[in-house]
Amino acid sequence: MTIETALEELSSLLGQRLSRSKSDLEQHGASESHFPLTPPDAVAYPESTEEVSEIVKICARNGCPVVGWGAGTSLEGQAQAFQGGISVDFRNMNKVLRVGAEDMDVSVQPGITREALNTELRATGLFFPVDPGANASIGGMASTRASGTTAVRYGTMRDNVLGLEVVLADGRIIRTGTRARKSSAGYDLTGLFVGAEGTLGLITELTLRLQGQPEAVTAAVCAFDKLDDAVQAVIATIQMGIPMARIEFVDEATAAAFNGYSGSDMPLCPHLMVEFHGSEAGVQEQAEIFGEIVADHGGKGFEWATKPEDRTALWKMRHHAHWAVLASKPGAKALVTDICVPISRLADAVNETRADIEASPITGPILGHVGDGNFHAILLFDDENPAEVQAVEDLSHRMVERSLAMGGTATGEHGIGVGKKKYMDAEHGAAWDVMGDVKQALDPQNIMNPGKILRGN
Amino acid sequence: MTIETALEELSSLLGQRLSRSKSDLEQHGASESHFPLTPPDAVAYPESTEEVSEIVKICARNGCPVVGWGAGTSLEGQAQAFQGGISVDFRNMNKVLRVGAEDMDVSVQPGITREALNTELRATGLFFPVDPGANASIGGMASTRASGTTAVRYGTMRDNVLGLEVVLADGRIIRTGTRARKSSAGYDLTGLFVGAEGTLGLITELTLRLQGQPEAVTAAVCAFDKLDDAVQAVIATIQMGIPMARIEFVDEATAAAFNGYSGSDMPLCPHLMVEFHGSEAGVQEQAEIFGEIVADHGGKGFEWATKPEDRTALWKMRHHAHWAVLASKPGAKALVTDICVPISRLADAVNETRADIEASPITGPILGHVGDGNFHAILLFDDENPAEVQAVEDLSHRMVERSLAMGGTATGEHGIGVGKKKYMDAEHGAAWDVMGDVKQALDPQNIMNPGKILRGN
Ligand SMILES: Cc1cc2nc3c(=O)[nH]c(=O)nc-3n(C[C@H](O)[C@H](O)[C@H](O)COP(=O)(O)OP(=O)(O)OC[C@H]3O[C@@H](n4cnc5c(N)ncnc54)[C@H](O)[C@@H]3O)c2cc1C
Ligand SMILES: Cc1cc2nc3c(=O)[nH]c(=O)nc-3n(C[C@H](O)[C@H](O)[C@H](O)COP(=O)(O)OP(=O)(O)OC[C@H]3O[C@@H](n4cnc5c(N)ncnc54)[C@H](O)[C@@H]3O)c2cc1C
Repeated sequence: MTIETALEELSSLLGQRLSRSKSDLEQHGASESHFPLTPPDAVAYPESTEEVSEIVKICARNGCPVVGWGAGTSLEGQAQAFQGGISVDFRNMNKVLRVGAEDMDVSVQPGITREALNTELRATGLFFPVDPGANASIGGMASTRASGTTAVRYGTMRDNVLGLEVVLADGRIIRTGTRARKSSAGYDLTGLFVGAEGTLGLITELTLRLQGQPEAVTAAVCAFDKLDDAVQAVIATIQMGIPMARIEFVDEATAAAFNGYSGSDMPLCPHLMVEFHGSEAGVQEQAEIFGEIVADHGGKGFEWATKPEDRTALWKMRHHAHWAVLASKPGAKALVTDICVPISRLADAVNETRADIEASPITGPILGHVGDGNFHAILLFDDENPAEVQAVEDLSHRMVERSLAMGGTATGEHGIGVGKKKYMDAEHGAAWDVMGDVKQALDPQNIMNPGKILRGN
Repeated sequence: MTIETALEELSSLLGQRLSRSKSDLEQHGASESHFPLTPPDAVAYPESTEEVSEIVKICARNGCPVVGWGAGTSLEGQAQAFQGGISVDFRNMNKVLRVGAEDMDVSVQPGITREALNTELRATGLFFPVDPGANASIGGMASTRASGTTAVRYGTMRDNVLGLEVVLADGRIIRTGTRARKSSAGYDLTGLFVGAEGTLGLITELTLRLQGQPEAVTAAVCAFDKLDDAVQAVIATIQMGIPMARIEFVDEATAAAFNGYSGSDMPLCPHLMVEFHGSEAGVQEQAEIFGEIVADHGGKGFEWATKPEDRTALWKMRHHAHWAVLASKPGAKALVTDICVPISRLADAVNETRADIEASPITGPILGHVGDGNFHAILLFDDENPAEVQAVEDLSHRMVERSLAMGGTATGEHGIGVGKKKYMDAEHGAAWDVMGDVKQALDPQNIMNPGKILRGN
């Protein structure tokens, strides 16, 4: 019962599809975040649910950690094998299995990326709305309970996964949910696996809700003198009940990074980027009311992008924000902190964070999905400068403390992994132990992504 | 360690608020459904979370079952104490604790009813949308994962509970969720307790999302010659992406029952009842498109109710459907079966069910929240006539089998309780065992509402 035995058995199961090459191990030992390299012992590339089940059975017999790998874009070290073991890379399980055009749903394998899925759906008039800034895999997105620019209208992964196929820690294969839109038939296991970061099982299939392509779409950017005005405009828009499809905030520093990276010429001040979906008349009406709200809050320089290519350019710029900010300080590392507060506290949270960053030696643009009360700071630092490392850690720590004190959460969408475990106690108290009880019940050997989310595992 | 010891300890804790009166026991031993009377050993009326915790601790020490009681309107025997023990009635814990007008949320105690909550919210311009046909308690609604006429627009209890306070099986008090709109901070415990029918703990506080009262509302009823046409019109409306706030189907037999009970004069044929929420222009536009779809499907006799009192009368009639149907056959009992299928199978499911009922000796109006693919048959029978009892059981059984065969669920909203446990295996297979593992982890003594939902408990 050792990892070596597991590797031998896995190798005879998978042949070439169990890799121990240095480049494979290093690629799966790193992530988009600031954690040290931690290569797994091997990388498995399964091609079917049955193979995943066999992999997990072998690992269970040998007490070998099993860590799912989608696109490796998670930001809290979730996909890294800190305790060694097998990285299960789903890249070969990336098919669309069924499109239910009438039911507006789709079944997919976990390895498909959100962009590939939407490309495949294009001809159907339907789309999958959840859009994190990276081209993540659907299995990874479900596992971190991801969201993105459209959550304000279409919800997060929690709202858009109808059902799952999961391989449990003992290799059993289960299905959760049905294709019905709602159900009261027992515990919501779908909801339990969504956001579990692979600590309760590996997802091998997902059934997702789709949305119809709206008849009309319009998007705009507008500028504000003060950050506070932009945030107040968001709050007013939500309270008016205007069904925004997207509403994103970027601060002055982010606008500067966009200009440098995308060749835009945004004025150096806070902005809102907004999009409306609906009928021609509906979109028109929403845009007008929004225009009035923005004017009331001192917004200006309103530019509507009604042409598809202008909108694509706009959202591409937004989705590339991370890279734009990184490029603004060559050589720097980024610690991205993600918090989410009740909307009534959003202005306070953003303002206090801005002031805190300004009082520090750190450059840290702020941007976010403010329609949900969710925003990020991309804290840039030199990882060889201990003072900067300390400063970004302190800033990030105070952001989370601020969020919790305001009734918010330590993470709106990036998840816990190893990076935010230290806040679980403050956020959940005894409920954290209940998570541990569930983990213990479903994975008593603690082989599924050990070290993540749970207390002392 | 007996129930008697528990009763003594509870009595010294609660005094007069532990009742063993015959009328109290009988009231808490019956339900709105067709199950036999099963009085609990006593009824407790706690007034605080701490008291609930003490009650559960006493019951845990003495191995005494604990069954939550909201309004007792659940239809699958969920609130009945089939194994005896204590019924914990939340009627005294019925306060609104906090209204977050800016955040559009509210914190309430579990015993408040949905009508009382909306009365309290009236002055705020906000409302809580989930509206089962009965005036259920919010704690009971969360526990059955209830929904109602507005789920097509605003979702079910799954979508509208942001956080909970729960007393666990050992008396520990936990909080799940925060006031942030979304979170990726660990397992979704809120979602685990919602729909658990009190088998994992007692809910002592809920934070709910609220909705803004729409600027404009309009509602209508329209008639169809054929059931199939009405259902096809629903499917077409959904696929057009029209954001209906409500879309309800009632068949000819239900229309007849309405006429008898509410003094309406609906033609004896299938109907749709629909409502739109939005801006003046938006509602107008939606109503027009819907009118065209209905005309395309042979709908007629369109009557718009734009005056609030006409709309209130319309939805009151719909909410009283259960009583109207019962009144149509004095002395009859009702077995209400609730299934939910993918929308593409809705017409088949309704048609086959209608034909099945017609081929039987049973009267069974069909109606439902068809925008979700969810419908009910209210099967009327004489409980002293074994042939009728058998016939309704067979009809109900075939409805569920049909739903599962179509990719649907055994229950869209009424839940499992004891009535639908027999379908859990067919619907969930090995996932049912996983629910059992979670139950075992959180309630190893099986004192929380034993006998419900789970395999052989
Ligand atoms: C530039 C950039 C922008 C981003 N913007 C956003 C954003 O807007 N919103 C947001 O939510 N996130 C954002 N993220 C974070 C990241 O994209 C998300 O966390 C995403 O959901 C990760 O998906 P992935 O496929 O890369 O998963 P991975 O990083 O590969 O894995 C994530 C977790 O899921 C587990 N896992 C993966 N596949 C499976 C499976 N099939 N079964 C079980 N467990 C599995 C892994 O073990 C790991 O715990 C951003 C990241 C970057 C780099
Ligand atoms: C006429 C009629 C129409 C109906 N229409 C609908 C409909 O449209 N949609 C729908 O979804 N349902 C409908 N129902 C069913 C019923 O109203 C719902 O199931 C409702 O959610 C039950 O709420 P309650 O307060 O009556 O709960 P109860 O019946 O008292 O309890 C339900 C379950 O919740 C548990 N429970 C209660 N309170 C708590 C608590 N605080 N903590 C933990 N567990 C608790 C109980 O133990 C039980 O298991 C209808 C019922 C009737 C009679």
